[in-house]
Amino acid sequence: MTTDVIAPANTLRAGIIGGGFMAAVHTHAARAARAELTGGASSSADRARDAADRLGLGAAFDSVDALLADPGIDVVHICTPNSTHAAIARAALEAGKHVICEKPLATTVTDAAELTALAADRGLVAAVPFVYRFHPMAREARARVARGETGRLLSVQGAYLQDWLAEPHDDDWRVDAELGGPSRAFADIGSHLVDLLEFVSGERIVRLNASTRTVYAARSRHADIATEDLVAVVVELESGAIGTLLVSQVAAGHKNGLSIELSGASGSIRFEQERPEQLWLGRVDGSSVLERDPARLAPDAARLALVPAGHPMGYQDAFNAFVADAYAAIDGSAPDGLPRFADGLRAVRLTEAVLASAASDGWVEVAAA
Amino acid sequence: MTTDVIAPANTLRAGIIGGGFMAAVHTHAARAARAELTGGASSSADRARDAADRLGLGAAFDSVDALLADPGIDVVHICTPNSTHAAIARAALEAGKHVICEKPLATTVTDAAELTALAADRGLVAAVPFVYRFHPMAREARARVARGETGRLLSVQGAYLQDWLAEPHDDDWRVDAELGGPSRAFADIGSHLVDLLEFVSGERIVRLNASTRTVYAARSRHADIATEDLVAVVVELESGAIGTLLVSQVAAGHKNGLSIELSGASGSIRFEQERPEQLWLGRVDGSSVLERDPARLAPDAARLALVPAGHPMGYQDAFNAFVADAYAAIDGSAPDGLPRFADGLRAVRLTEAVLASAASDGWVEVAAA
Amino acid sequence: MTTDVIAPANTLRAGIIGGGFMAAVHTHAARAARAELTGGASSSADRARDAADRLGLGAAFDSVDALLADPGIDVVHICTPNSTHAAIARAALEAGKHVICEKPLATTVTDAAELTALAADRGLVAAVPFVYRFHPMAREARARVARGETGRLLSVQGAYLQDWLAEPHDDDWRVDAELGGPSRAFADIGSHLVDLLEFVSGERIVRLNASTRTVYAARSRHADIATEDLVAVVVELESGAIGTLLVSQVAAGHKNGLSIELSGASGSIRFEQERPEQLWLGRVDGSSVLERDPARLAPDAARLALVPAGHPMGYQDAFNAFVADAYAAIDGSAPDGLPRFADGLRAVRLTEAVLASAASDGWVEVAAA
Amino acid sequence: MTTDVIAPANTLRAGIIGGGFMAAVHTHAARAARAELTGGASSSADRARDAADRLGLGAAFDSVDALLADPGIDVVHICTPNSTHAAIARAALEAGKHVICEKPLATTVTDAAELTALAADRGLVAAVPFVYRFHPMAREARARVARGETGRLLSVQGAYLQDWLAEPHDDDWRVDAELGGPSRAFADIGSHLVDLLEFVSGERIVRLNASTRTVYAARSRHADIATEDLVAVVVELESGAIGTLLVSQVAAGHKNGLSIELSGASGSIRFEQERPEQLWLGRVDGSSVLERDPARLAPDAARLALVPAGHPMGYQDAFNAFVADAYAAIDGSAPDGLPRFADGLRAVRLTEAVLASAASDGWVEVAAA
Repeated sequence: MTTDVIAPANTLRAGIIGGGFMAAVHTHAARAARAELTGGASSSADRARDAADRLGLGAAFDSVDALLADPGIDVVHICTPNSTHAAIARAALEAGKHVICEKPLATTVTDAAELTALAADRGLVAAVPFVYRFHPMAREARARVARGETGRLLSVQGAYLQDWLAEPHDDDWRVDAELGGPSRAFADIGSHLVDLLEFVSGERIVRLNASTRTVYAARSRHADIATEDLVAVVVELESGAIGTLLVSQVAAGHKNGLSIELSGASGSIRFEQERPEQLWLGRVDGSSVLERDPARLAPDAARLALVPAGHPMGYQDAFNAFVADAYAAIDGSAPDGLPRFADGLRAVRLTEAVLASAASDGWVEVAAA
Repeated sequence: MTTDVIAPANTLRAGIIGGGFMAAVHTHAARAARAELTGGASSSADRARDAADRLGLGAAFDSVDALLADPGIDVVHICTPNSTHAAIARAALEAGKHVICEKPLATTVTDAAELTALAADRGLVAAVPFVYRFHPMAREARARVARGETGRLLSVQGAYLQDWLAEPHDDDWRVDAELGGPSRAFADIGSHLVDLLEFVSGERIVRLNASTRTVYAARSRHADIATEDLVAVVVELESGAIGTLLVSQVAAGHKNGLSIELSGASGSIRFEQERPEQLWLGRVDGSSVLERDPARLAPDAARLALVPAGHPMGYQDAFNAFVADAYAAIDGSAPDGLPRFADGLRAVRLTEAVLASAASDGWVEVAAA
Repeated sequence: MTTDVIAPANTLRAGIIGGGFMAAVHTHAARAARAELTGGASSSADRARDAADRLGLGAAFDSVDALLADPGIDVVHICTPNSTHAAIARAALEAGKHVICEKPLATTVTDAAELTALAADRGLVAAVPFVYRFHPMAREARARVARGETGRLLSVQGAYLQDWLAEPHDDDWRVDAELGGPSRAFADIGSHLVDLLEFVSGERIVRLNASTRTVYAARSRHADIATEDLVAVVVELESGAIGTLLVSQVAAGHKNGLSIELSGASGSIRFEQERPEQLWLGRVDGSSVLERDPARLAPDAARLALVPAGHPMGYQDAFNAFVADAYAAIDGSAPDGLPRFADGLRAVRLTEAVLASAASDGWVEVAAA
Repeated sequence: MTTDVIAPANTLRAGIIGGGFMAAVHTHAARAARAELTGGASSSADRARDAADRLGLGAAFDSVDALLADPGIDVVHICTPNSTHAAIARAALEAGKHVICEKPLATTVTDAAELTALAADRGLVAAVPFVYRFHPMAREARARVARGETGRLLSVQGAYLQDWLAEPHDDDWRVDAELGGPSRAFADIGSHLVDLLEFVSGERIVRLNASTRTVYAARSRHADIATEDLVAVVVELESGAIGTLLVSQVAAGHKNGLSIELSGASGSIRFEQERPEQLWLGRVDGSSVLERDPARLAPDAARLALVPAGHPMGYQDAFNAFVADAYAAIDGSAPDGLPRFADGLRAVRLTEAVLASAASDGWVEVAAA
């Protein structure tokens, strides 16, 4: 009755570690990429069972080790608290799995560098979901900068503002330095900001001067809080451009306010995550707002535009594209702009520089690598 | 090694008819809803094979009849040209399949009414993707109107403006009255507009007066074009409210500009599809823009909000929600706001009224049912 | 000590009739245009004295007749209730004064036509403050349409929405048909809308079909209210374009929401009075928002741009430009786009057509003149 | 014929020094405030005559000294290049004139402090047009912060971005350190930014760390340019809040992009000069955009709102309000928020701190006074 059975050439088999909001986002993306959702693990067998049930995973493993020992799993998604990333990622790579690990990749540069080297040694795909790279208009911004449309970079203005910790009683495992690591706001969201800024500008931050603040020394489940709510930074980039970064998780009214603006000798460009379908293109003689229209985008942006102009794309679409590209890399292709462990390491390095500058009350140089 | 295997209670098996852009959108949504994508059919076996390959469907059927004859298929998605909807939907219902049929459900009120009755007789779920109902903020608007926040309705302002037919050479099967039916712009997008307007307002249009224009009498593959590019309408609603509708596919610069604004005795409310994450709430004493924040939404809106505030949702997310609700209905639940064949019929009835008004150059009453 | 005394060649001497908000706006504009504010009159000598004091007028006249009899006054600004406009304007013209008369020029076409003829006979400048013509970006829109940038006109979408009568108790002399005339919302603000639409498009409305509503039959000081709060119209223009107009003074949240959008075969253009410093330019291939930058504007727009780009201009600036142009006309020049009594008559004619259509429940033709 | 002659109690007689764009802005404002425009002076008698003619001043003086020697002049507006401000202001005060002096008040803290003391000694009104304080919504922001609506201040984000020097050939006397002084971008526009930030927040910057850049070392008429195009700063305020400032005159696409955002423990507030009719009010639970509606504003904001909601106010309106308040101070009242020489001094002090930080590559403390 049917002419033939068609199956994707290489259906990947994915395992999901963790069961929170990000695990759900990863699972949706893996399903959209036609993976087989082999199973999940969490901090306990019960939690794994609950997550597998909610997310529609094929099986619940008793432990992370059990999952990693399953030869039927090709790729592991790590969606657990920050301080556990490095150990799980190391174990996964050593088990021969490809890895998609949530940011921050690690809580120290040493760990992040070791993981990056390990992935390279083993020839495994190891990616970090700097998901905002996957909005078509972020790609469009990068393509325009790369082809010289904005000219020599002069200034940058970046911000990542949220308010989910704005109330004194707001709390979360991230507030706990044991789980979250030595940096909170910068590691959690500043890492996205610097990744996107360097990705779009094609330039590295070479020097920075930061102030940090911990606004609430105690929250509902934590006292003597050691990590920062808020960071203000002046940066210098390799071309000599200067600029400012503001990162806060206590900025009332901002839900996920990630924005970058680059001004160059020939033009400016601005991307805002909460309005991801457009770019502001600043020109001395006639600025404009460019709406996502696949017909008018650079190839690397157009390929991510799954629906026509006027049909908004959003966060999950960007995440789906990230996972699809990571899977394509596993499948042997080399998708442009896939954030790999080296990019995760870069963000950890900048986070350490921010903490060091605030501690020393002065400028800190940032190594390029 | 694994504790147990978990499978969704009722995995639906879906068939996709058609292979164009909308078939892809339906397929993504079916996959997100964890359906088994059993197979597809199209206007030829070759096209079916191509679509099955692209979309990742399990099988390619030689014909629509072959697909409908497969007892393994529970639900059929009809994504073919307008004039074929009625016959395929009828056959599918007669084959005992649940049906999701693209709008317009039919090109005549008679056909649409017959299909609506048939689905009821057979006890099958029969839905039409009036997808814009599934943006959380469209639901929020409806909930606020329903609980009286805007008061007695006084005026409405609706528009659906596109430009994909703005150039004289732009062409498509929709321009052909044989395939597209007797109305073009209104059937294609005006149907979404009146559905959303009645859905959000909770009121019916009872009377209308329309002008239509066919701007280009010939396009690249069609001469003597009989269907309209453009419609302007004055409407009266059951409460006595009056308003205007403008529908155009030749409005340069508008990609998918669907918007509705309702003004009542206590407040106004505005939803724009191209900015689906917000509502404008007009008040004499302090208007505001409400951003989608699940914590602040009515239950029926919050349940559709899959990601937190500040993480944009888009068109595919809305479509996924529509299909998930249609599948839930098949599974026995009664999701609020699912657009069924009766709603498809309603849109056809209003389309016929628009054509009748333009032809008679005067007001036309619209039956309530 | 000083090299010489410099005086404007022709300092006009202006008289202000009325003492409300609009009288203040006229006075500010006359002062900015370097007129000598000779004096004012109102409905009583006491009110005249109060107004002269508040507004800084040179003298308070006992009556309108007394003011008109003063040979030292060159130009009279009429800022009184609608139903008094015609008689005062007639007396002023007969007294040989140039006249600036608030809209609506008259409450009947007959009166408006007579005044228009009288001004022509006497060779006097007679202007009506359709002030929104004097935003640089409204001029820019008109210039772009006139030079063919938007192509053959296909559709129009206009609205003028306010909420100052949205509460049942809101009241004003305008609600009283004796003072305000037979039309309320349309005469008061619809007149601005149709003037701006015809001014920018360069086309006349030739046919229309309107519904009107009086939402509150009684307000705090009026019962059996005869005039409309709300009007919805379908229009046809001389080129064959169609469109919609919505006019309301009961649209909660809208303070002064005048907007027009024209879509032509080559592009669309949109002007919103509440954002008067920009135009939306709709294009199939790349829409943009044009900000007011004198360097980039058509000459007739640039001449009205008194401050550089980025320094917002507003309502009083537009009013100042209107009065400056009216005074320039009195001084013998012929400024482009000055709204004269013929334009005031045109708006009255369209207002009568709207009332006639609503009364007859059908289409009404509108004479071109 | 007239009942009586009414004259403003105290008509001020104003003199205008300088003849450029700012002189025109000051003149419009003086005229709106019903001053007698006694005369003007400039760098030569010819230029004075030209300016007097264009601006409608009563007389052209041969020199600044001649103007200052005229006993008929009450108040002097200084609109000349930066480096001349201090000497002219000193001479004017010594001549017993009230003074309105363009910013920067002086090019050194020493001069600015001396002038501030001199004005106090003589009991003369001495004001600096930090005009952005006079937008009603800037006042509203200040009032809301002052009454605790935003809570303890946590972070600030300020920018003043322009592009009028973005092209390498763009040039002006400001580029010349002899005329413009040792700081360019920060003295010219950064001074407005820090004034507005401290005015609205009610807090002083106590410490800062700045980077500066001179992008073009040569322009059309200048080589070896010594002053900065661009400044990036991290600031700390007296409450412990931190934040960033970015000031640039080479930011393509920004015409007059002054913006400040304050985030406090209870809410955020944002004012943008290019959209001066609204404030963004950020809240964890429901942000909003507050449009200027006199009925809803704090008294100090409402008194500056000359036209109703929905009728945009702009730059000249703000300037008119500044001059009206300065004149009211001369007339003996004490208008809230009038920027006086002490405020001019404050901006000079912060400018010096920025230059010192950039020179020393480290943090600089800023004296409170």
